[in-house]
Amino acid sequence: MNQNKMIHTSGDFSPEEVRLANRNPGMALELMAEDITPVGMHYQLNHFDIPLIDEKTWTLEVNGLVRNTLKLSLEALKALPKHEMIVTLECAGNGRANYEKRKQSMPWFNEAVGNARWSGVRLKEVLRESGWEDSVSEVVFTGADQGLDHGIMHYFARSLKLEKALHPDTLLAYEMNGQPLPVQHGYPLRLIVPGWYGVASVKWLKSIELMDHPFDGYQQAVNYHYRQNPDDPGKPVDEMKLKSLIIPPGIPDWYTRKRFLNQGKVQLSGRAWSGQGRLEKVEIGIDGIWKEASLGKELGRYAWRQWFFEWDAEPGEHIIQSRAFDQDGNYQPDEPEWDESGFGNNMLHSIRVHVDDG
Amino acid sequence: MNQNKMIHTSGDFSPEEVRLANRNPGMALELMAEDITPVGMHYQLNHFDIPLIDEKTWTLEVNGLVRNTLKLSLEALKALPKHEMIVTLECAGNGRANYEKRKQSMPWFNEAVGNARWSGVRLKEVLRESGWEDSVSEVVFTGADQGLDHGIMHYFARSLKLEKALHPDTLLAYEMNGQPLPVQHGYPLRLIVPGWYGVASVKWLKSIELMDHPFDGYQQAVNYHYRQNPDDPGKPVDEMKLKSLIIPPGIPDWYTRKRFLNQGKVQLSGRAWSGQGRLEKVEIGIDGIWKEASLGKELGRYAWRQWFFEWDAEPGEHIIQSRAFDQDGNYQPDEPEWDESGFGNNMLHSIRVHVDDG
Repeated sequence: MNQNKMIHTSGDFSPEEVRLANRNPGMALELMAEDITPVGMHYQLNHFDIPLIDEKTWTLEVNGLVRNTLKLSLEALKALPKHEMIVTLECAGNGRANYEKRKQSMPWFNEAVGNARWSGVRLKEVLRESGWEDSVSEVVFTGADQGLDHGIMHYFARSLKLEKALHPDTLLAYEMNGQPLPVQHGYPLRLIVPGWYGVASVKWLKSIELMDHPFDGYQQAVNYHYRQNPDDPGKPVDEMKLKSLIIPPGIPDWYTRKRFLNQGKVQLSGRAWSGQGRLEKVEIGIDGIWKEASLGKELGRYAWRQWFFEWDAEPGEHIIQSRAFDQDGNYQPDEPEWDESGFGNNMLHSIRVHVDDG
Repeated sequence: MNQNKMIHTSGDFSPEEVRLANRNPGMALELMAEDITPVGMHYQLNHFDIPLIDEKTWTLEVNGLVRNTLKLSLEALKALPKHEMIVTLECAGNGRANYEKRKQSMPWFNEAVGNARWSGVRLKEVLRESGWEDSVSEVVFTGADQGLDHGIMHYFARSLKLEKALHPDTLLAYEMNGQPLPVQHGYPLRLIVPGWYGVASVKWLKSIELMDHPFDGYQQAVNYHYRQNPDDPGKPVDEMKLKSLIIPPGIPDWYTRKRFLNQGKVQLSGRAWSGQGRLEKVEIGIDGIWKEASLGKELGRYAWRQWFFEWDAEPGEHIIQSRAFDQDGNYQPDEPEWDESGFGNNMLHSIRVHVDDG
């Protein structure tokens, strides 16, 4: 399929992009001061309409190449051992709006991220109950949300390789931050694939199918691929790339969001995370001069980590930047790496500030 | 002040407008199926950064021309009689993006609305404790959120005439939908002015000042005025105009949000409200032929009301529209009434649908 149909060549945005932004909230970056993102502030990316599900009649069906087809109520799922994790989720399209030339889709600048406490049952506990044929290689997760994309009608669905599905941290979550899943985050049940971009964590789960061949659904086989050009077969989007963001210091101008602060000592802070290598350090650049930040406590293997940097701000215009490094020697690039669909843009974060001598 | 500085003359949107949309979520219209909007789905319009307040050190100060200056803890406020109301709030800028020529600001299409259960203490109970001088005419509410707008640095602040402040339904809310106020809705305390556009309901309240003259703060005296042109002194934005919205039927296309459904009987529904006259009826137009909808139960004087309309959908392209009427003979216009800043656009709601013969 031609992913190049909707390349947009100006700095301006279409009404369709703005309509998507009206429906799909980001996390205001100042909320990164909180270890756990409050429920109503976590980013959302809802491809189709949010389905309103009655938990009394809802069941999770587990079918396909299984030994026992299952129909599990929420109560039955809650009777299984409970597992909890703190997980940072980021949309694969976060940063898309920073490309001058980009596919028309949800226009995220930086806000498509959040960090929450997810609780539920390990997927492998459920698959242990269903069992599976020896030929099974892939597990497909289908949500209750339905629509069209590039003319293809489908329920939103994604798959994992069997090995990943059986990973002890692949979760079927029924709670977020200690409360029942909010409707916009997949009530009553959501898959959580920690370390991967949010698209893998299918919401409003209605069925799990075990298969002996690769899943060819649109969101798996066509969409959510890194591509250099429309003819590129592409590489699936999976683990979140290394990234860091800055809590904008000082106070904003309403419209431009430019920042204003007074001269003197300023405590800069932000968050960094990776779904690939382990975070090693964060560097902060002030007008292009880079120094290392200190790191806050670890919240868990899959959670973002806070960083701190004291800056002695002098009057004038400045650019503050952050870039993370992992233990494998990777770091955030200065410019977005080209991607046809605007996926996986992990360029360093930059903020303009005006420092007053007041 | 010249409100005309930032008139935008194309159908496209600026990066600054999209940045605002990333931070300021709307309510996905399918959530209108719920009487009460879930906390994380209610629209937000945050002018500046969201302040993170510690309720242990926070107090509400009541000062100015009072007999007793007060410093009230949240505990002290909760000790006063509790009052609860179901209130629909809409942003005065909702519909701004539907103007072709518009002030550059938050680009709302239709989603800046929500209906919640707000609980707290009547403002008049607090003012009874402070008392006031005979000369008092106006009450100013200041939030903890600070920033610049058109070069003017200020804490967000708005005022009410004393009579409106003493109205038994003017509320200091500390709960939303039975839970402590979420941070994005003004934790720990928010003014609620039912029937008025959301701007009046100041969040993150830190002080209330009683004055003997009109408040000249930017958000009161300059911004949030209806103006025909930049030189127009304008008329303050206050009560919400009559409005109705449609829950988009069928299923969407991801990018265009165009709707698709099968032929046959379709139950259309949506909501209608007004902060001015009382709602009388809602009419639904199918390709320009208007018929009356039935109305659901009343949720309260200040709450939206559901409407229902059965449509026998025939194959082809259709336009579905809704318009509300009040008991004073007002109804929603076909086109937006011109406003310099894009405030108060209550034109009828239109949705395009494709009906399949499948």
